[in-house]
Amino acid sequence: MTAASIDVIAIGNAIVDVMAPADDAQIESLGLAKGGMSLVDARRAGELYAAMGPAREISGGSAANTLAGLAALGARCAFIGQVADDQFGRVFAHDIRAGGIAFDTPARPAEPPTAQCLIFVTPDGQRTMNTFLGASQFLPAEALDETAIASASVLYLEGYLWDPEEPRRAMRKAIAAARAAGRQVAFTLSDSFVIARHGDDFRKLIEDGEIDILFANEHELAALTGFDDFHEGIAALGAKVPTLVVTRSEKGAHAVARGEEAHVPAEPVDRVVDTTGAGDQFAAGFLFGHVRNLPLADCLRLGAICAAEVISHYGARPEADLATLTASVTA
Amino acid sequence: MTAASIDVIAIGNAIVDVMAPADDAQIESLGLAKGGMSLVDARRAGELYAAMGPAREISGGSAANTLAGLAALGARCAFIGQVADDQFGRVFAHDIRAGGIAFDTPARPAEPPTAQCLIFVTPDGQRTMNTFLGASQFLPAEALDETAIASASVLYLEGYLWDPEEPRRAMRKAIAAARAAGRQVAFTLSDSFVIARHGDDFRKLIEDGEIDILFANEHELAALTGFDDFHEGIAALGAKVPTLVVTRSEKGAHAVARGEEAHVPAEPVDRVVDTTGAGDQFAAGFLFGHVRNLPLADCLRLGAICAAEVISHYGARPEADLATLTASVTA
Repeated sequence: MTAASIDVIAIGNAIVDVMAPADDAQIESLGLAKGGMSLVDARRAGELYAAMGPAREISGGSAANTLAGLAALGARCAFIGQVADDQFGRVFAHDIRAGGIAFDTPARPAEPPTAQCLIFVTPDGQRTMNTFLGASQFLPAEALDETAIASASVLYLEGYLWDPEEPRRAMRKAIAAARAAGRQVAFTLSDSFVIARHGDDFRKLIEDGEIDILFANEHELAALTGFDDFHEGIAALGAKVPTLVVTRSEKGAHAVARGEEAHVPAEPVDRVVDTTGAGDQFAAGFLFGHVRNLPLADCLRLGAICAAEVISHYGARPEADLATLTASVTA
Repeated sequence: MTAASIDVIAIGNAIVDVMAPADDAQIESLGLAKGGMSLVDARRAGELYAAMGPAREISGGSAANTLAGLAALGARCAFIGQVADDQFGRVFAHDIRAGGIAFDTPARPAEPPTAQCLIFVTPDGQRTMNTFLGASQFLPAEALDETAIASASVLYLEGYLWDPEEPRRAMRKAIAAARAAGRQVAFTLSDSFVIARHGDDFRKLIEDGEIDILFANEHELAALTGFDDFHEGIAALGAKVPTLVVTRSEKGAHAVARGEEAHVPAEPVDRVVDTTGAGDQFAAGFLFGHVRNLPLADCLRLGAICAAEVISHYGARPEADLATLTASVTA
């Protein structure tokens, strides 16, 4: 196996986030499930946008956010995802490349448009997401750069993208390419609704040993294992994947890797402004430590620092200098 | 004269701001004049965008920002400006309407695209703006709603928009409509380059008594009057317009109205994050006091509070609840 020229290559949704403040009454009157993520069609997206206050647009997408954090920490990254040939597509492509991440997936024609996520942020910092997938769900398997996948230490996959059929085929093909090259596969479960629809796929991938690093939050852990008790869930799943990382919001995070266990408390934050991207940046910090071969507890600590940075401001990508913020761990 | 059903109607550029952090070295290497505003063509805009870091998009445009502040304070507002039928045009239209501002100017076909302003924000909070006017410079005189203009207490015009020919014609027609209806005309000089190109027009409008309220910063005051000394400039121009308002950044602001003079110090700010929109929000606060018939010193104080709010965060439109922030003055 040759040395990797990329640390992490990711396949994910290519989304521009459209974010605005909201209050609980608006969340309720719009019939939204506070704190959740819903897929919406163009009509519903139009309805929700019309009801939304003045907004701002910031590039998002779960795995793309994770790469933005990884690149800010100093990792070499590449992204695969589908935008349309429109203004939001150019915004997404600009922002990811400007972060130093290689991104070569060609844009599709402008219909459907580039994916958008309408995010209502309540005063408690909680985000309620409504995703119109648009072009993102048409990522074809042919768009994969298998040479790039084979040259990356870790292939990182976003569970959200398992739902639409074409990207699922692309991700299966990517897993095969990574494994054939002796590389590691990391997977984030993304959301309980994805597990409800594709849990059998995920359990089979895990049983077949296709996943080396699995990211979940405690609700996803319960949904995947069937254990409501956190520690029972950890014990059941931790025995099946080489590295399991479970985040628990303000209760911190937990990891199990080859029998070793570690825990990190949540990093203190002055004010939680917007929790969008907390899990994505936790994964960024953890994976950075992982590709640098740091001890498991340090990987968790990096995750906690990156998550704390992103929830202290609007938007799912880092604003502060993550390399400086994490210097005490990485030095 | 019937009672006004609108407090302020404004004509201005319809712009989406594309904002990113930058350092002084980047400003210099791109050949930008730090702190200034430059008009750029599509080619140069593409060059600058390619060099820009990961960005965020927030609706802007000088007069539109002022209306956003006015509406947040509780004023009844309407906007006239030209967007293209593209994603940024829909973003601009959404954000202004979501702020409670009437906006009915029909979009043009998608070429040229909706105006964008590429803004590089340095760590000292200073913004360096590069505006690609696109569709905005094609606002036709026919787009004016003269009934709406006649029903607004104040018609507010943005000097930036005096530069392109079609909107200039539209603004002259709007001034005539407002005056015929016995309404007031407020004008912001916007930038020294506008005065360099159109100072004779502005001086004639003032001599002809077409402008009731004039906004300038101290550099624009000097450029328009030819007096380098601030107080000489104030004396010369203050004799010619019913209300003159001059902002001086951290030195506060000064107003002269029918012989009365008032001064306000700058409102203290914890940290200046981004000065974009400071003048626009000063104008919002001042005009709000003006349409509420508050004393001159209170109008200035409202301007100072609104300007302080907007420079404490990214973006040129208010984020905090301006009505609450200003309650001590307006109560």
